[in-house]
Amino acid sequence: MERCLVTKTSLPLSKVYRLIEPGPVVLVSTMRGMKPNIMTMSWHMMIDFEPPIIGCVISNRGYSFDTVKKTKELVINIPTVELAKKVVGCGNTSGRTVDKFKKFGFTPTPGTSVQAPLIEECYANLECKVIDTKLTTKYNLFIVEVVQAWIDRSQKHPRMIHHQGNGAFVVDGETIKLPSKMK
Amino acid sequence: MERCLVTKTSLPLSKVYRLIEPGPVVLVSTMRGMKPNIMTMSWHMMIDFEPPIIGCVISNRGYSFDTVKKTKELVINIPTVELAKKVVGCGNTSGRTVDKFKKFGFTPTPGTSVQAPLIEECYANLECKVIDTKLTTKYNLFIVEVVQAWIDRSQKHPRMIHHQGNGAFVVDGETIKLPSKMK
Repeated sequence: MERCLVTKTSLPLSKVYRLIEPGPVVLVSTMRGMKPNIMTMSWHMMIDFEPPIIGCVISNRGYSFDTVKKTKELVINIPTVELAKKVVGCGNTSGRTVDKFKKFGFTPTPGTSVQAPLIEECYANLECKVIDTKLTTKYNLFIVEVVQAWIDRSQKHPRMIHHQGNGAFVVDGETIKLPSKMK
Repeated sequence: MERCLVTKTSLPLSKVYRLIEPGPVVLVSTMRGMKPNIMTMSWHMMIDFEPPIIGCVISNRGYSFDTVKKTKELVINIPTVELAKKVVGCGNTSGRTVDKFKKFGFTPTPGTSVQAPLIEECYANLECKVIDTKLTTKYNLFIVEVVQAWIDRSQKHPRMIHHQGNGAFVVDGETIKLPSKMK
């Protein structure tokens, strides 16, 4: 937690949607016993603003599925384009056989509200608890609540990546501002 | 349908995820009796590849909610950055008082599998049927299946927009290709 507080500051929960709504590829970190793991995910969406509720699809063929089902915890870590190769690496390997923190040089940092580790190198970290599994068996869909959020405010222009399929990723370009009543 | 076939060609359902997974702002069109309507949405995600299953959050305060609940149909239309002002306009107005097709100069085009109209000016159109409403009351979450998809192949470099909150949108930038086993 101390390291976390060194590079990151707390993000108000009401602003979490600004990170998830644009649809970036994210890294999901979990803790299975003493074993931390990472998976790459881009099937997620906001469901409510505050408390922030997020829907996540986690394949039941992956190693993280059982962990999330059992521990009911995960951290959604938001990487920038500089980490793209590692993000894809995490998507191409399984925690069954690989220690991904070690292999990709990610630093696990303790959170404050969940056992699952934060990925220090990511721009933001959302500590989440699973609150609904009604559609988990049918669609691999977990509904989670963000209970604590962290952001690296030293990064002024973080650019996220978005998966277009087949290993192609579109990188955030220019930002446009339009008068909107949309929250 | 004929006009549709003039500017659009059918997109294989197995490729639909490539449009939704990057997290673009989309326009949802519906048909309430004889009255077509449009809403702006960015809370959506892929749930399965084929048939393509998508999760959508549609606020129960909006005009489209009742229509979708009743008709169990909608079209997800994917606009490019050129339409950004109209997209925000659709998000800032309600179908209760405004004919959005007329106000924003969008052309409704008949689909082949649903009564809801396609928005001709959008890059792609996904005709969807609601297949699961178990979490609709609790989270405004609809699970839909894409039954027919259309794409404008004449647009070689369509750039989507992603909502970052408060009327700020990030536009698709460069595309990077990384060797990935991710589908």
